[in-house]
Amino acid sequence: MLYIIGLGLADEKDISVKGLEIVKRAERVYLEAYTAILLVEKGQLEAFYGRPVIVATRETVESSSDEILDGADKADVAFLVVGDPFSATTHADLLLRARALSIPTRTLPNASILTAVGATGLSLYTFGQTVSLVFFTPSWRPASFYDRLAENARVGLHSLVLLDIKVREPDLAMLARGKIVYEAPRYMSASVAARQMIEVEEGVGPDDDMGRDAVEGRSEGVCTRGKLAVAVARLGSEGQKVVAGTLEQIASDEVERELGKPLHSLVLVGRRMHEVEMEALMDCAVDKTGWEETWRKEYNG
Amino acid sequence: MLYIIGLGLADEKDISVKGLEIVKRAERVYLEAYTAILLVEKGQLEAFYGRPVIVATRETVESSSDEILDGADKADVAFLVVGDPFSATTHADLLLRARALSIPTRTLPNASILTAVGATGLSLYTFGQTVSLVFFTPSWRPASFYDRLAENARVGLHSLVLLDIKVREPDLAMLARGKIVYEAPRYMSASVAARQMIEVEEGVGPDDDMGRDAVEGRSEGVCTRGKLAVAVARLGSEGQKVVAGTLEQIASDEVERELGKPLHSLVLVGRRMHEVEMEALMDCAVDKTGWEETWRKEYNG
Repeated sequence: MLYIIGLGLADEKDISVKGLEIVKRAERVYLEAYTAILLVEKGQLEAFYGRPVIVATRETVESSSDEILDGADKADVAFLVVGDPFSATTHADLLLRARALSIPTRTLPNASILTAVGATGLSLYTFGQTVSLVFFTPSWRPASFYDRLAENARVGLHSLVLLDIKVREPDLAMLARGKIVYEAPRYMSASVAARQMIEVEEGVGPDDDMGRDAVEGRSEGVCTRGKLAVAVARLGSEGQKVVAGTLEQIASDEVERELGKPLHSLVLVGRRMHEVEMEALMDCAVDKTGWEETWRKEYNG
Repeated sequence: MLYIIGLGLADEKDISVKGLEIVKRAERVYLEAYTAILLVEKGQLEAFYGRPVIVATRETVESSSDEILDGADKADVAFLVVGDPFSATTHADLLLRARALSIPTRTLPNASILTAVGATGLSLYTFGQTVSLVFFTPSWRPASFYDRLAENARVGLHSLVLLDIKVREPDLAMLARGKIVYEAPRYMSASVAARQMIEVEEGVGPDDDMGRDAVEGRSEGVCTRGKLAVAVARLGSEGQKVVAGTLEQIASDEVERELGKPLHSLVLVGRRMHEVEMEALMDCAVDKTGWEETWRKEYNG
C-alpha cells in the first residue's frame, strides 16, 4: 500500500496518531520537500519517528516514481507531504502511476494552509479561488494570477495567494560550465508578493532602475497600493505572525522583517469583508485607524 | 489555556500527536457535537484518551461558555471540534469570550472537508466560495445559497455545498405540551441536497403533492437537472464513497442508498472542470458515457 500522509503545518507532532502508526511500520518513508516545508529539520522527524526518512526531490517524484513505488504492492510505503496531500496538486501523478501498477493507495488528510488561514479571523466561506504566485525575474513575470484575483474581487471575495518556494534549483551559470550546483533555497515573503502584485497593477517603465523589461500595467484596480491585505507567516505554529494593512504597507521592509522566517502567505481581502472580520484583525493592523477607515469607505460587506 | 483542537474527519486516531498530548493532560475535555460528527461514538474517544469527555451542546457553548472557560486561566481546558476548528465559524464567540476574560487560547488545525474534498480528484484551486444548505420545510426554504452558487458558476468554479445536520432539536409538539423532548438526529444526504437545489431552480406549483408552499423557480440555469455534481460520503475515512453524475441522478433513491450513512457533502461542478478532473471521476460516475459527453459538450475548461 502507498500511503500519502499529510504532516500538518508546524512540526513533527502535527502528524495524526494514525499517520504516525503507519510511518513506524512502513518499509520505507519518503518526505516530499519541494512544495512546502515544515518548520523543523529532517533530523527532528527522524528522531521522533525512530527511523530514517528519505528526502524525495522533485526529480525523484517526477522521473523516478517507480523507485518510490517499488514493492508497494506487497509492503507499505509512506510518502509524507507537508500540510495536506490534496492542497498540493503535484502528487496526482504519483497516485495515477500507482493505480497503473495496481498498487493500492490511501491518503491521510491533515491541516492545510487553505483552512488554517481561518486563524486570521477571516471567514473561510468568503474565500474565492486560491491562486499561486511565482518569483518574477527581470524578463519573466507571469501575471495570469491577476485574472484570478480580478474574478474573486468582482464577486467581493477574499483570495488566498500561495507563494513560490525554490529548493534545489540548479545554478545556471555553473550548469553552463558543466557542474551541477544547487542554489540556496528561496522562499517568497509576503512583502515580495505584495511588491509583485503592485508591479502587475502599475506596470514597469522603459527606464526601470531595477533593470526589468518594460511592461504595461493591468490598471484594473485589483492590486492598487491602497487595497487591504493580510500577510501570514508560519501559520499553525506557536510563532505564527499575522499583519494586516494595505498592499503598500505589506510591501515594506519593516513588515518583511516583522513577519520573519518562511513560510509566508498573503490574503487579498475582498469587498465583502464583514465588520467582525475587520475587527478581528485590528490588533494586527500596521495602522489601526487606516485599516478601519479604508474598510468603512471601500469594503463594508 | 483554552485549546481548540481539530479532530480530523473519521475516527479517534485522526487527532494530531500534539492534540492527543494536550487532551491527556487537560483538566477538562469538551467535545462539540452539533456542527459535525465523527464516525465513532464518544465512548470510543474516551477509551482511546483514557479519560471522560464532556459533550458540549449548542446551548452550553452559546449560553454557558463561562462554564467551559472556568479556571482556564490557570489550568488547561481542551475543546474538541470535529474536522478543523476554523472550518466551522461558530466558535469565534468562544474565542472572543476567552479573550474578554484574559484567558490565553490556542487552536490546533486539522483536516477539513474543505480540503479533503480533493480526494475526489477535483482541483482545490478551482473551487469558489463554500456554501451551506439547510433542511427545507414546506414553508421555509431559504435560497440565498443559490446566489452564491450562481456567482461561482459565472466564473466557472466548483462549489462545495455543506449539508445541514440537526442534533438535539426540541420536538415542537412536545414543547407545546410543556415537555422538552429531543428529536432523533437528522443528517442531510447529498440526494436530499440535490432535490432541494433542483426545487429552487424549478420552483413549486400551487397544487404541490408534497404540501409545499408554491414558489417561483429561480430559472437561472444554475441547478438544472442535467448539471454535473459529485456527492461524497464519510470523506477521509476508509469507507468513503464518491458518486459523480447529474443533479437528477444524485437526487435518486438509488444513489442515496449507495452513499449510505452520514456525513455527506456535495460539489456542484464548475464549467472549468479540466479533462484530468473529469477522468479522475469516471470510475465513480453513475453513467460513464453521459458523464464524459456532458463534460465535452457543456464544460471542457
